[in-house]
Amino acid sequence: MVNGQKIPEKMMAVAISTPGGPLVLKPEKRDVPTPGEGEILIRVHAAGVNRPDVLQRKGAYPPPPGASDLPGLEVAGEVAALGAGASRWRVGDQVCALTPGGGYAEYAKVHASNALPLPAGFTYTEAAAVPETYFTVWHNVFERGALKTGETLLVHGGSSGIGTTAIQLASAMGAYVIATAGSTEKCEACLKLGADRAVNYREEDFVKAVKEATDGKGADVILDMVGGDYVGRNYDAAAIEGRIVQIATQHGAVAQADFSKLMVKRLVHTGSTLRPRTVEFKGAVAAALETQVWPLLATRRVAPVMDMIFPLREAWRAHERMEEGDNIGKIVLDVG
Amino acid sequence: MVNGQKIPEKMMAVAISTPGGPLVLKPEKRDVPTPGEGEILIRVHAAGVNRPDVLQRKGAYPPPPGASDLPGLEVAGEVAALGAGASRWRVGDQVCALTPGGGYAEYAKVHASNALPLPAGFTYTEAAAVPETYFTVWHNVFERGALKTGETLLVHGGSSGIGTTAIQLASAMGAYVIATAGSTEKCEACLKLGADRAVNYREEDFVKAVKEATDGKGADVILDMVGGDYVGRNYDAAAIEGRIVQIATQHGAVAQADFSKLMVKRLVHTGSTLRPRTVEFKGAVAAALETQVWPLLATRRVAPVMDMIFPLREAWRAHERMEEGDNIGKIVLDVG
Repeated sequence: MVNGQKIPEKMMAVAISTPGGPLVLKPEKRDVPTPGEGEILIRVHAAGVNRPDVLQRKGAYPPPPGASDLPGLEVAGEVAALGAGASRWRVGDQVCALTPGGGYAEYAKVHASNALPLPAGFTYTEAAAVPETYFTVWHNVFERGALKTGETLLVHGGSSGIGTTAIQLASAMGAYVIATAGSTEKCEACLKLGADRAVNYREEDFVKAVKEATDGKGADVILDMVGGDYVGRNYDAAAIEGRIVQIATQHGAVAQADFSKLMVKRLVHTGSTLRPRTVEFKGAVAAALETQVWPLLATRRVAPVMDMIFPLREAWRAHERMEEGDNIGKIVLDVG
Repeated sequence: MVNGQKIPEKMMAVAISTPGGPLVLKPEKRDVPTPGEGEILIRVHAAGVNRPDVLQRKGAYPPPPGASDLPGLEVAGEVAALGAGASRWRVGDQVCALTPGGGYAEYAKVHASNALPLPAGFTYTEAAAVPETYFTVWHNVFERGALKTGETLLVHGGSSGIGTTAIQLASAMGAYVIATAGSTEKCEACLKLGADRAVNYREEDFVKAVKEATDGKGADVILDMVGGDYVGRNYDAAAIEGRIVQIATQHGAVAQADFSKLMVKRLVHTGSTLRPRTVEFKGAVAAALETQVWPLLATRRVAPVMDMIFPLREAWRAHERMEEGDNIGKIVLDVG
């Protein structure tokens, strides 16, 4: 029973009918999942769209063992049912959550520790735009990259979901933020979000721009989802003891770099992917976010940048939009 | 006055007469250095030979600003004079020290904090073989690489000065140690020093060997001075959350690697060079070594592996030996 409504046996979901382009995303009837030990079932009202969903649709990023084959890594909605031992939540609670897959559906199950209360004053579509980028940015920039107040962050893809979140959070934490983006419009968006300097990579060399902006010192932390020739250029743009965190390799995973620079500058090049991590790890990140970032969301000091909202059934349009690369901020599906 | 002897104005030293092969190393008369604030003057009895000396001789590794132009990064001898504020030592104390250069000489000055007491029972030639490799291994394997008891260390160049030290220290600290080396004889030397597994890289693929020895898990820490194609292979040989510490790039600094592996395995690729670090940093490493490693040297639980000793005037022979690559352990100059 959810708010007096019985949970149905079947639900509407959007599945990957076969690997391919956006149009392989098709509505299907599916069984409503049953929450297991420690899990909750969420009646999904909105689901975030992320780049890994696109890779999964193309067949390049299979879901981890045990996860739903449906795409969708984040949702917002109401708690519809509780598995054994999921004591934090009550049926009817408004939550957003990181899901291991299965977000493109009317119901999704997640571990109770991977859900967070809906940020105060947030709509479901706004809240569904939060988990994936906030978990990713928090862990990679502040935990793995150890960005500190007064340090310089260089974030590539500044107008992406990850980029806009990194700019806002790092700026709120007192870092000097340099963002790269591919158009004047996107650069302006980065500056509005709190970036101290935006670099249009089509017109300017980001290494030179970073050096100029930091009196030759370089960036203390670099958040990179580009890879390819950016790897070597990140080594050039980094400060002594700089940390470079790789969260994707959109320009290619195999690349050349000068490792004497890594050594002489004592850089730390690391990276991570969020999806295969344990529920315990994700729960720990959720706890840190609730303490440190949820208050900033409640006051709108930081907030997800919303690009466009599409109905769940038209998820293919959301993927088209993401692949065109014109989005500024997050693309979200309205599940109703 | 040293033990009743006046400090002379001139001393014998071996200098790099011009960049080139071993024979450019020539004896010269030089002024005895004057210790500055916080420094001590050491009457050198023995000086260690290291690979950076060879690079410096070739003109490829200029001394940092303010350092002596003479080669030599480590010495053992007696304290001959104290600069202002160098209160820890007394004239006549037996010490070994990391030098910023200038070790190939009868006298060398170092910051007081970068000297350590001669390990109990050690000769000067043995003690001169300690600082460079022990400072390097301690910082890179245990501080930067954070190797813990029960973890696996893969060390390349297992029979080098660095390699033999890393094997002994990691083994003494309770790590499982895999070493690579280029001959059966060198592999045997690694096993004798405490390596649990030695891999002859001319006959065996080290990635496969590491996977087999760790039930497919990989190495938690990799100490690498090879670079080149080893970079990508290190990513393959590393465990999830593994740390790869680059301390040289003998096979080339520019190399290709698959950075999706770094990301998916959440590796940390870092590195460092010792010589340009501050005296404060070196002093902190010295303090850690004195507490944690000097007791192990006193009981000979660990000890430098001595390859050959040459007279200072014949430093060119020491360089020839190092460049031939047949040495097992440290090459030292007897300064008399």
